[in-house]
Amino acid sequence: MTNAHITWVEDMQFVAQGDSGHAIVMDSSEEGGGHNTGARPMEVVLMGLLGCTAMDVISILQKKRQNVAGLKIFATGERAAEHPKYYTKIHLEYVAAGDVQPEALARAIQLSEEKYCSAIATVRGKAEITSSFRVEPALTK
Amino acid sequence: MTNAHITWVEDMQFVAQGDSGHAIVMDSSEEGGGHNTGARPMEVVLMGLLGCTAMDVISILQKKRQNVAGLKIFATGERAAEHPKYYTKIHLEYVAAGDVQPEALARAIQLSEEKYCSAIATVRGKAEITSSFRVEPALTK
Repeated sequence: MTNAHITWVEDMQFVAQGDSGHAIVMDSSEEGGGHNTGARPMEVVLMGLLGCTAMDVISILQKKRQNVAGLKIFATGERAAEHPKYYTKIHLEYVAAGDVQPEALARAIQLSEEKYCSAIATVRGKAEITSSFRVEPALTK
Repeated sequence: MTNAHITWVEDMQFVAQGDSGHAIVMDSSEEGGGHNTGARPMEVVLMGLLGCTAMDVISILQKKRQNVAGLKIFATGERAAEHPKYYTKIHLEYVAAGDVQPEALARAIQLSEEKYCSAIATVRGKAEITSSFRVEPALTK
């Protein structure tokens, strides 16, 4: 069981908190009636998905004794044109830095996407998940 | 198109950032190899879903000229027993405070769940969504 709750603060500003006790602020843009004091909810869904697969990939690479110096993952979510504008496709671009064998990274991504990542498995009923990856000597900002 | 990216900080700590520029920290528990400096990814997925439906419900209640004094939503997510432990069922309990007609709240929730909420529509392929609601004179913490 995983739980969270959300409390309305004012206008379109809300604070959400999960079982772990950590809280995050969400808000909409000024055009959406908010004041941009926090992330948009659909960004937050993507962020949770990124966190899920990122933790898998780091854990697996470390178990494979890869010397990972850095990891970034970029998510691009395509949305349905009509309400409800759900994610129809999410592309994940994995960029690892350090002494990482490309085949180890590919295998880590595959294990996360197919076996371990609960968030990817949750959205996959609706969203098509695609991915790409590369290894760089050092991560740029 | 909705975008976000995540950067590994250390151990199981990651910082994610979306198009809006707002960032959130995710981490795992000590038992999971982390240091509990941020929310768990699957909590974050639930939080995004809560933010999505909360914004809908507040907007709709205000359009219906309901005098909403407060809104809290509690999400309970049941997970599959085996990897990948995706959400099989998510229950949303809506608690509004103030001078709110129960039928207006019921209709707002229905519109969010069936028509507007992009996050609910994204996870619904896998997770069954159920909800309940009540109106209270004033919200307790």
